[in-house]
Amino acid sequence: MTTYTPIPKGFKFATASAGFKTPGRQDSALAVSDTPAVAAGVFTTNLFKAAPVLVCQEMLAASDKARAVLVNTGQANACTGDEGLENCRRTQELVGKAAGLAPAEIFPASTGVIGAQLKMNLWEDVAPKLAANLGKMNLEDFARAIMTTDSFPKYAHAVVDGITVSGAAKGAGMICPNMATTLAFVFCDAQVEAKDWQALLRRVTELTFNRVTVDGDTSTNDSIFAFANGASGLKAEGALLARLEDAVREVLGKLAYMLVQDGEGATKVAHINIQGAASDADAQLAARAVGNSQLVKTALYGKDANWGRIVAALGRSGASFDPQAVSVKLGGIEIFRNGGPVAESGTEAFEAALAEKLQARDIALDIQLGGGKGAYRLLASDLTHGYVNINADYRS
Amino acid sequence: MTTYTPIPKGFKFATASAGFKTPGRQDSALAVSDTPAVAAGVFTTNLFKAAPVLVCQEMLAASDKARAVLVNTGQANACTGDEGLENCRRTQELVGKAAGLAPAEIFPASTGVIGAQLKMNLWEDVAPKLAANLGKMNLEDFARAIMTTDSFPKYAHAVVDGITVSGAAKGAGMICPNMATTLAFVFCDAQVEAKDWQALLRRVTELTFNRVTVDGDTSTNDSIFAFANGASGLKAEGALLARLEDAVREVLGKLAYMLVQDGEGATKVAHINIQGAASDADAQLAARAVGNSQLVKTALYGKDANWGRIVAALGRSGASFDPQAVSVKLGGIEIFRNGGPVAESGTEAFEAALAEKLQARDIALDIQLGGGKGAYRLLASDLTHGYVNINADYRS
Repeated sequence: MTTYTPIPKGFKFATASAGFKTPGRQDSALAVSDTPAVAAGVFTTNLFKAAPVLVCQEMLAASDKARAVLVNTGQANACTGDEGLENCRRTQELVGKAAGLAPAEIFPASTGVIGAQLKMNLWEDVAPKLAANLGKMNLEDFARAIMTTDSFPKYAHAVVDGITVSGAAKGAGMICPNMATTLAFVFCDAQVEAKDWQALLRRVTELTFNRVTVDGDTSTNDSIFAFANGASGLKAEGALLARLEDAVREVLGKLAYMLVQDGEGATKVAHINIQGAASDADAQLAARAVGNSQLVKTALYGKDANWGRIVAALGRSGASFDPQAVSVKLGGIEIFRNGGPVAESGTEAFEAALAEKLQARDIALDIQLGGGKGAYRLLASDLTHGYVNINADYRS
Repeated sequence: MTTYTPIPKGFKFATASAGFKTPGRQDSALAVSDTPAVAAGVFTTNLFKAAPVLVCQEMLAASDKARAVLVNTGQANACTGDEGLENCRRTQELVGKAAGLAPAEIFPASTGVIGAQLKMNLWEDVAPKLAANLGKMNLEDFARAIMTTDSFPKYAHAVVDGITVSGAAKGAGMICPNMATTLAFVFCDAQVEAKDWQALLRRVTELTFNRVTVDGDTSTNDSIFAFANGASGLKAEGALLARLEDAVREVLGKLAYMLVQDGEGATKVAHINIQGAASDADAQLAARAVGNSQLVKTALYGKDANWGRIVAALGRSGASFDPQAVSVKLGGIEIFRNGGPVAESGTEAFEAALAEKLQARDIALDIQLGGGKGAYRLLASDLTHGYVNINADYRS
C-alpha cells in the first residue's frame, strides 16, 4: 500500500475481487471506522430507489452512528423487489460476521446494471477476503474498486486545523444529481454533532454534486455518505465547524468536477454561470436548459461558439427575462449583447480568439440575464461520439 | 409541374433559387391564395422570437385574413435586432410589389442560422422570380424548398366532403415544439369562421406538433400557418367543421410524425404512450422525461431493451406514482411489472422476441403508471452518431 492521499485517523480500507461482472477486477470495497462514527447521508430523489438506498434510509432513521460502508459494482440492485432487499441485508450480515461488525453498522451501496440481482454465491466468497484486506488498501484503491464506466478513480482530500477530510466518488453516466448524487463517500476524523454533520452535508451537496450534469438523467442509486469518527480528538464547533464545512466543500467540489470531467465520452467541462436572473430558481432553470441542451453540448464538442443555440436554450428554459437585456460571454469574450451578436462578431481576429478559447477542456459560459439578483452555477459535459458509443453498445 | 398531392382550390405555389446559402438550390418559396383567406397561426413560446414571428404576430393581431406566405431557408432572422425586423418587412414589400399583393397580406417565415441577417441584395433579385413562378410548382416543390437539414420533403393531404386540406412542414433539429412548432403550413379551400379556424388550429397543434421531440430544444422560429380560402364553396360549420378538424389533425399528425422520422441522425421513432397517471400533466412529465432522456435515446439506437433507463427516467420525471404499480411494454411485450423485470426476462425466447421488435423503425413504448386517468402520447427520435456528426460539424 502506497498512501497517495491522506487518510483521516481511525479509518481502514479494503478492496477485493468477487468477479461480479469482470473476472479478476477489484469490484468490492469496504471502509471501516475503528469506532462508531457520526454518519450522514443524502440520497437520490428518483422514485425507483435501489434496495441499498432504501436500507440506508432505514438505518439513518434509526441511528446517527455507523462504522462502515460496503460497496459493490456490477449490479445496482435497483428494481429488484423483495429479493433485492433480502440480498442487500444478507451482504451486511456476511461482511459484518467476517469483519466483526454489527450488520446495522454497515451502509450498503451498489452501482452497475439496473434490475440485476446480487450474485450471492460470490458475496459468500468475497466477504472474508474484504475483512482480511482491511487496512491493506488506501483511498485510491477504494476509489478504483467502485468505478463502472469511469475512466479514472476519483478521490480528494483537505486538511483543516489538524482535521483530515478525505473523499471518493464514482460516476460517469446517468449523472444529474438532484438533492443527492451518484455514489460518493466522505471520511473525516473530526468530532461533530450528528445534526451539524447532516446539515453540513446537505448544504455542501446542494452547492457541489447537485450542480453538475452529464446527461440530465438522475440515477436510482445516487448516494453520498459522510462519516466523522472523532479520532483527531478535535471538536468541530463554531468557527472550526465553519472551516470544516469549507474543507468538505473543497473535497466534494473537486469530486463533482471530476464526475463531469470524466462524463461518458466527455471532452469538455462547461462552467455555466448565470447572473442577473429574477430569482435563483429562474437562474437554475436557465443553467439547466443550457447545460442539458443536446445542441449546446454537441456545439461544445465541435468547438463551435454557437451562441444561437445557447440563447435558444435560455429562451425556452421557462426563466422569465427580457431578451434584449441578455449578454453571453464564452471564455471571457462577450459574444452576444442586447439581443444580438456583438459588432466584432465574424471578424477574423474575433473568431480566432474564440477558436483558441474553444481548444481548452474547461469553457466558461458567463450569462447575464438582466439586472436581478438570481444566480446559479452548473458544470456540464459535452455530447460526443464517445457518449453514443458507450451508451448504444453497453447495457448499463 | 407534376401534381403528386392535391392542392386545395384557389392556391398557387412558387419556388426560386436565391443563393441564400447554397448556390443553385431552391431556397425560397411562396404560396398565394387567389382571394383573401381566413388565416390562423401558432408560434414558438421561446422568449427569443425571430423577426418574422414578431411580424406575423402583429399581422394576426390586426387582421384574421391573409393571402400568402413567404419562406426562406439559410437565415433564421432570429436575434437580428431592428435591422432584422426592417429586413423582414422589406421582403414583404419586394415580393408584394412583384406579385401584386399588399405587404400586409404576406406572412414571412424564415429558417436557418440564428443571428445571420437576411441577404437583401439576393432578395431584390429573387422577388420577381418568385412572382413569375407562381402556379408552376406544386406542394412537393414548396416542401422541398423550405428544407434545411431535412433529408426528405414533408407534405400530406386529406379530403373531406369535397374540401381539400394540404400541408407542408420542415424540421429535423432544434425540435421540441411547445404550444407551437417548427415551420408548418396548412392550405384549405373550406369557408370557415376566423375564430373557429384559429381555435381548431390550436387544438390540433396541441395534439400533433406539440407532442413530438427530437432533441428537447424549442426553436426561436417555430410557426404553423393555416389558410382557409373558401374556394371550394363549402361552408365548414357544425358536423362538417368537426370532420374538417379531423382532416387537419390527420394532415398535421402525418407531418409531425415525419419530423421525428427525419430527426437529425434518427433511426427510430419511439411512440411513447403513458396511461394511468394521476393527471395528464403528470403523464406529460413522464413522457417527456423518457422521450428526452439521452440514455433511453441511445439505448433505442443500440437496439437495447434497456427498461432500467426507461424506469429511471420515469422515476426522476417529477410525476407522482407508486413505483410498484408501474408496467412497461416494448413493442407490445411486457418487460417490467410490479417494480421489477418480468419473470421471463433473460430467457432466450424472450430476448429473441424483443430483439425482433427492436429491429423496426417504429417502437411502441406503452407505459402504465398506475390506476389514474391521466394520459399523454409523445413521439421521440433516438440519439445517434449521425446526430452528433450533424450538430458538432455544422453551425446551424
